[in-house]
Amino acid sequence: MPSVKALVFDTFGTVVDWRTSVAREVKALAKRKGLTVDGARFADSWRAGYGPGMNRVRSGELPWTRLDGLHRMTLDRILIDFGIVGLTEAETDALNRAWHRLQPWPDAVGGLTRLKKKFIIAPLSNGNISLMTDLAKHSGLPWDCILGAELVRHYKPDREVYQSAADILDLKPAEVMMVAAHLYDLRAAKDMGLRTAFVARPLEYGPDGKPDLDPDSSVDIAAKDFNDLASQLGA
Amino acid sequence: MPSVKALVFDTFGTVVDWRTSVAREVKALAKRKGLTVDGARFADSWRAGYGPGMNRVRSGELPWTRLDGLHRMTLDRILIDFGIVGLTEAETDALNRAWHRLQPWPDAVGGLTRLKKKFIIAPLSNGNISLMTDLAKHSGLPWDCILGAELVRHYKPDREVYQSAADILDLKPAEVMMVAAHLYDLRAAKDMGLRTAFVARPLEYGPDGKPDLDPDSSVDIAAKDFNDLASQLGA
Repeated sequence: MPSVKALVFDTFGTVVDWRTSVAREVKALAKRKGLTVDGARFADSWRAGYGPGMNRVRSGELPWTRLDGLHRMTLDRILIDFGIVGLTEAETDALNRAWHRLQPWPDAVGGLTRLKKKFIIAPLSNGNISLMTDLAKHSGLPWDCILGAELVRHYKPDREVYQSAADILDLKPAEVMMVAAHLYDLRAAKDMGLRTAFVARPLEYGPDGKPDLDPDSSVDIAAKDFNDLASQLGA
Repeated sequence: MPSVKALVFDTFGTVVDWRTSVAREVKALAKRKGLTVDGARFADSWRAGYGPGMNRVRSGELPWTRLDGLHRMTLDRILIDFGIVGLTEAETDALNRAWHRLQPWPDAVGGLTRLKKKFIIAPLSNGNISLMTDLAKHSGLPWDCILGAELVRHYKPDREVYQSAADILDLKPAEVMMVAAHLYDLRAAKDMGLRTAFVARPLEYGPDGKPDLDPDSSVDIAAKDFNDLASQLGA
C-alpha cells in the first residue's frame, strides 16, 4: 500500500459543531425580534432538510444548486413553521450564512495544525467553496486547499466526489484518507479506494441523538479526536 | 462602488519568481548528470511553451489539459533541445514538478499575511489545483482557498476564469480585485468588472527581460510590492 499523502475531511459534524452554532444564532435572532424559539429544534429541522434537498439535485428535479441555496430553501419553509415572520431579506440571508460561522470541535484546529505538517489537508464536504472558505476564515481551519461537492457538481455520497479528491490532488486513491464521523461517508470513500479514519462525535445531534459511535469494517483507523488521529499517524 | 472583499492573485511572476527557481532546479539536475546547462535559458524556453500550450487547449486541438500536463509536453521537447537525455521517468516527473516548488518574491508571504486579515485571498492562476496547493505548502502562501483555471477548465485570459472568481465566492465582480504583474491579465479582469491592482515585478524575465513596468488605464491601484498594496488597502 502506498503511504497516505492527503487527508480529506467531512466537515459538518466532523470538524464543526453545526447544531450548537446554528441553535445559538437563531435564538439570538429570535430574541432580537422579541420571539422565543427552541434553537436546537430549529437547527435539527434545518438539518433535516439537507438530505432531501441534495436528493432533489441528485434526481435532476433541481439543477446543480449549491448548499447555500439548498439551505435557503429549507430555511424559508421552517421560518414559517417556527413562526418567525417579518424578517428582511438581509436578515434572512444573514441567518442562512450561520452555516458559514460554525464553531469547530475543541480539538479540531489543534489537530489539523499538527496534521498539516505531515499531510495535505482539505475539506471534502458538501458545502460550497465560499461557505468552506468563510468557515475556515471564521474558525482558523488551516486547510491547504478546498475540495468537495462544488468542484464536481455532485453531492456525497456520490462516487464522483471521492474520486475527485485523488484526481485533483494527482494522487492514487489509496494515498488519500477520508476522515469522517459518519460511517456512510467512510463506506462510500472506501468503495472508491480511499483509506478511512473514523472520529466519533457523540454530541453531533445533541444529547438525544443517535450518532455513529463505533467503527465498522469500512474503517482503517479509529481515533477519539483529531489530536489522537495526529498521534496515530505520526504527525 | 461596493467595497473590495476578496483579492485574487496571478501567481507565476506576480507571487513567485518562476525563472530563478526553475533555472536553479534544472542546473542542479544537470550537474548531477555531469552536464552543463544554462538554467535561465532553459527556464525561458520552458516558459515560452506556456502560451502555445494553452492555445492548443483553447482551440480544441487538445482536450482540457492541466498545466502540469502542458508543462510536461514542453519539457519533453526542450530536454532534447538542451541535450539532457537519459533521465528516468521519475527524474523527469520530479523536474516537471519544479513548478510546484517556486520561490516567492521576498515581500509576498508577509504582504499576503497582512492582506489575509482584511480580505479573502486566493490565487487566480492557470496552475492546476495540486500545483497551487504544493506551491502554497512549499512556500507558506497563506491562501484562504484556491481558485483559477482548473475550476472552470478555461485558461486566462478567457473571461470564464475571472467570472468564476466572483461567482464561486458569491461576490459581485466589483467586490473582487485582481492583483497581477501583467497588464493583459488586468485588462481581461477589468473587462469582466473586477477591480485591479498592478504590482510590477521588474526581474520576472531576468535582467534582459521586458516586463510591464507602468500601469495603464485598466489599473485601479498600482503598488510597488505586496506590503505597499496592503498599506494602500488599509490592511
